[in-house]
Amino acid sequence: MTDRPDPKSLAEQCARTMWASDRASHSLDMRLEDIDEGRAVMSMAVKDYMLNGYAMCHGGYIFALADDAFAYATNSQDQAAVAASCSIDFLLPAYEGEVLTATAQVLHQSARSGLYDVTVTNGKDEVIARFRGRSSRINQPILSRGDE
Amino acid sequence: MTDRPDPKSLAEQCARTMWASDRASHSLDMRLEDIDEGRAVMSMAVKDYMLNGYAMCHGGYIFALADDAFAYATNSQDQAAVAASCSIDFLLPAYEGEVLTATAQVLHQSARSGLYDVTVTNGKDEVIARFRGRSSRINQPILSRGDE
Amino acid sequence: MTDRPDPKSLAEQCARTMWASDRASHSLDMRLEDIDEGRAVMSMAVKDYMLNGYAMCHGGYIFALADDAFAYATNSQDQAAVAASCSIDFLLPAYEGEVLTATAQVLHQSARSGLYDVTVTNGKDEVIARFRGRSSRINQPILSRGDE
Amino acid sequence: MTDRPDPKSLAEQCARTMWASDRASHSLDMRLEDIDEGRAVMSMAVKDYMLNGYAMCHGGYIFALADDAFAYATNSQDQAAVAASCSIDFLLPAYEGEVLTATAQVLHQSARSGLYDVTVTNGKDEVIARFRGRSSRINQPILSRGDE
Repeated sequence: MTDRPDPKSLAEQCARTMWASDRASHSLDMRLEDIDEGRAVMSMAVKDYMLNGYAMCHGGYIFALADDAFAYATNSQDQAAVAASCSIDFLLPAYEGEVLTATAQVLHQSARSGLYDVTVTNGKDEVIARFRGRSSRINQPILSRGDE
Repeated sequence: MTDRPDPKSLAEQCARTMWASDRASHSLDMRLEDIDEGRAVMSMAVKDYMLNGYAMCHGGYIFALADDAFAYATNSQDQAAVAASCSIDFLLPAYEGEVLTATAQVLHQSARSGLYDVTVTNGKDEVIARFRGRSSRINQPILSRGDE
Repeated sequence: MTDRPDPKSLAEQCARTMWASDRASHSLDMRLEDIDEGRAVMSMAVKDYMLNGYAMCHGGYIFALADDAFAYATNSQDQAAVAASCSIDFLLPAYEGEVLTATAQVLHQSARSGLYDVTVTNGKDEVIARFRGRSSRINQPILSRGDE
Repeated sequence: MTDRPDPKSLAEQCARTMWASDRASHSLDMRLEDIDEGRAVMSMAVKDYMLNGYAMCHGGYIFALADDAFAYATNSQDQAAVAASCSIDFLLPAYEGEVLTATAQVLHQSARSGLYDVTVTNGKDEVIARFRGRSSRINQPILSRGDE
């Protein structure tokens, strides 16, 4: 009761638990900049191995960053959720060395399905991609009793 | 004239040129299994660093594989094209060690914009994701004169 | 037991039940051309009131036709389902007098959510639009006991 | 020069020209509530003929309203544009008699392609659908010389 965490603390606990075993995000040197209920901010620098044949960041890595912010936002209420369907619009290219920031924000969350928007910006605060994701909760908590 | 390559040979030349400088695909150990006009097949094994906190392959890597097959299919006619907008539906999880195969196929290609479907299957030939991409040609050849 | 209908008969019964109260489809003079498990074919003629300022069929009517075929396909197993998320790519314009045909086909159907493709063709069998829809079952039959 | 209209006036002129021949919008009794550069607000009441078999507004009509707001926003700079690709997420049902309002807002507009978000709300200001559209300019003005 009294120790029921507030929404932001709960989101932080969920994020810590996910992050501990999230090799995909670690391997891309992502950083979780901020987390709150229904909201997450994640950043990543564009490395040389992320470049495609046009010396631009491969769309897959931009998607991965957006999808990651989406995952942390959608798992911020201690109810495990997976991505069901995502779309992304690529607006500007990204180049080596740029730090990209993905900001995910809930638009709608029902008992089972959620809709989230993610905006990806570059260092000049230009929007380089817009992502929209639909999530499904899988009826499972994220935190074990010991975490709370 | 007489030495104008047939569509499949042209697609192979474009793919070789792109592949040479495509660090993103190399770094993920992708393999281009087949290439033809408006069509490409790309494979990738799920590695441990691709796993998210649920020990499933991060959606970003599945997207990257699909997006890559899409890129090679859409660049198979010696007209450089970029991804404008993509959507993906995740149908089944993928686990470490599985080899995923993405098959991209043109649905529509006009002078400037194209629409392509990509199906991602696992080793049991189950469809684990469906991707649809819209491309834009940028008015530039892929092959330099020396390549032809 | 013995009188459990085969999948096509069940799909036909579901379609009849839905059709009876489906004013939207009637008001657009749609015709259900074929129905089977996970599959529906619906047609509609482009009328003058459907034209936009460019004398082309308004995309909303093309979407409505595709969405309708999707609805009948997704409701063909006596489990009521609603559209959660749809995307459409417009490839060619449609003009007054043309008869458009939408063919919906299941790609994936799990206990709750489904993924369907719909292709819209004109009288020359050219694909004018591609639609992809994700459905959610709402835990309710379509047929009442009296219908079976 | 001096009589070059300001952006809002230009948007209004474009809208008047489109509206005059836009039978689709008229036949659905849509109302253009507001128009500006890259922005349009359109409303529509849900009529009985718009209902599907579940007595909810057919998704096609909700899409049509959103798509219409999108069309007016994307054609607000005297450069004719068509819808290339749209997606819609249905969040809440709409019922007979409700007045729905679609607000379209530009996210990105380059020389040729644009990305727009449309939010559809009901009378209680609840968001019932989220639409995202990608447009292509077709290299043609909307206003004839006589209109300016």
